Amino acid sequence: MPPKALIFDVFGTVVDWRSGVAAFVAPALAARGLETPPEALADAWRAEYQPAMQRIREGGRGYVPLDDLHRENLDHALAALGLAEAFDAPARDALNPAWEALPTWPDVLPGLARLRERVLLAPCSNGSTALMVRLARFAGLGWDCILGADVARDYKPKAGVYLASAAALRLAPGEVMMVAAHDGDLTAARAAGLQTAFVPRPDEYGTGQPEAISQQWDLIVDDFGELADRLVD
Amino acid sequence: MPPKALIFDVFGTVVDWRSGVAAFVAPALAARGLETPPEALADAWRAEYQPAMQRIREGGRGYVPLDDLHRENLDHALAALGLAEAFDAPARDALNPAWEALPTWPDVLPGLARLRERVLLAPCSNGSTALMVRLARFAGLGWDCILGADVARDYKPKAGVYLASAAALRLAPGEVMMVAAHDGDLTAARAAGLQTAFVPRPDEYGTGQPEAISQQWDLIVDDFGELADRLVD
Repeated sequence: MPPKALIFDVFGTVVDWRSGVAAFVAPALAARGLETPPEALADAWRAEYQPAMQRIREGGRGYVPLDDLHRENLDHALAALGLAEAFDAPARDALNPAWEALPTWPDVLPGLARLRERVLLAPCSNGSTALMVRLARFAGLGWDCILGADVARDYKPKAGVYLASAAALRLAPGEVMMVAAHDGDLTAARAAGLQTAFVPRPDEYGTGQPEAISQQWDLIVDDFGELADRLVD
Repeated sequence: MPPKALIFDVFGTVVDWRSGVAAFVAPALAARGLETPPEALADAWRAEYQPAMQRIREGGRGYVPLDDLHRENLDHALAALGLAEAFDAPARDALNPAWEALPTWPDVLPGLARLRERVLLAPCSNGSTALMVRLARFAGLGWDCILGADVARDYKPKAGVYLASAAALRLAPGEVMMVAAHDGDLTAARAAGLQTAFVPRPDEYGTGQPEAISQQWDLIVDDFGELADRLVD
């Protein structure tokens, strides 16, 4: 049965967070005469992502939107790189919107334009509604609505995020397909009853290597163009 | 201070629910040889709207999305018109998506296209996310996200709906402007700290008479074109 809605992982799958964050922080590093590669700050910042959410997933902390976790994580990342003294609080606040200014992978916008003719499209990200709205404006993404962490007030890969996202569209889980470049995201979505599509993003971490494929997902495609070929034509 | 986001009442303010529902139900009435004017069914259906939500606002019933209230309200409306025996349950289910197929007022799409250049745009309706998504697809509305009842799991004019909608965008209430053709909606939005804009819709109930204006709203405009004149230029 073809899906009635596609919901998308965003960081890594739809947008190139590493290049985007690096480009956003580069002027601030340069202005301070720091020789830290901007990609190193992007990587250090992203390295705090899963641990920060994990405390919330496990119930050790109430739901905090990712915007606030990103700001906390930036403190840790700067400290880890020995840059804590170079950035005061207002300078850190000014870096935090880096996550709202990320470029799409080249196949994304043309693929979504074709997919839009057939199905509903929404992000199912751990980013907040506010973050996803501003990122969509920056990147030109035309979503039907914003689903994901804010809807469930919890973080993927908790099952409730996928289930609440399908329920918000009044669709059964099996009528919705999760699209991601990440094995763990799809494993959890499949366990929750969703259809699954894997799109490799070999450059997500700047390595040229895509994430390993652990299962026979419902679709395994090269990019959003092939996803549209499979679902629209 | 100019608003950073506009949030909109939808039924009556953005779309002409009466004409839309009437057009949707007309073939079903005609197929049964019923002489009930389709506008009468639209009016009777809409008459059940506020009472159904009021039980939920008062806490006498947990949150139920408007899609389900509409389906219950249809039963009451058909009974009130003496049409209960003419529509079995599947026929009633088939009428319920009438609320997802409503035309915009003529000024809406061009006005929103101009407003979009300056501010974030979202519905703040008592319609569910699912209903608003499908209505947006039908009508060609390009929202940034869907706010309103589902976000707060309560119904306007409860303050929490306006406050949760602003919070979802990480904006202060005063950074958000509520746009509505209804005095009560704006009174509640103003009490919650939002900016307010009144747009008369004299044909909402087919009478040619707009709702009375009880207060000096921040903006009082003839239509979405004038709203864009005031906020964009």
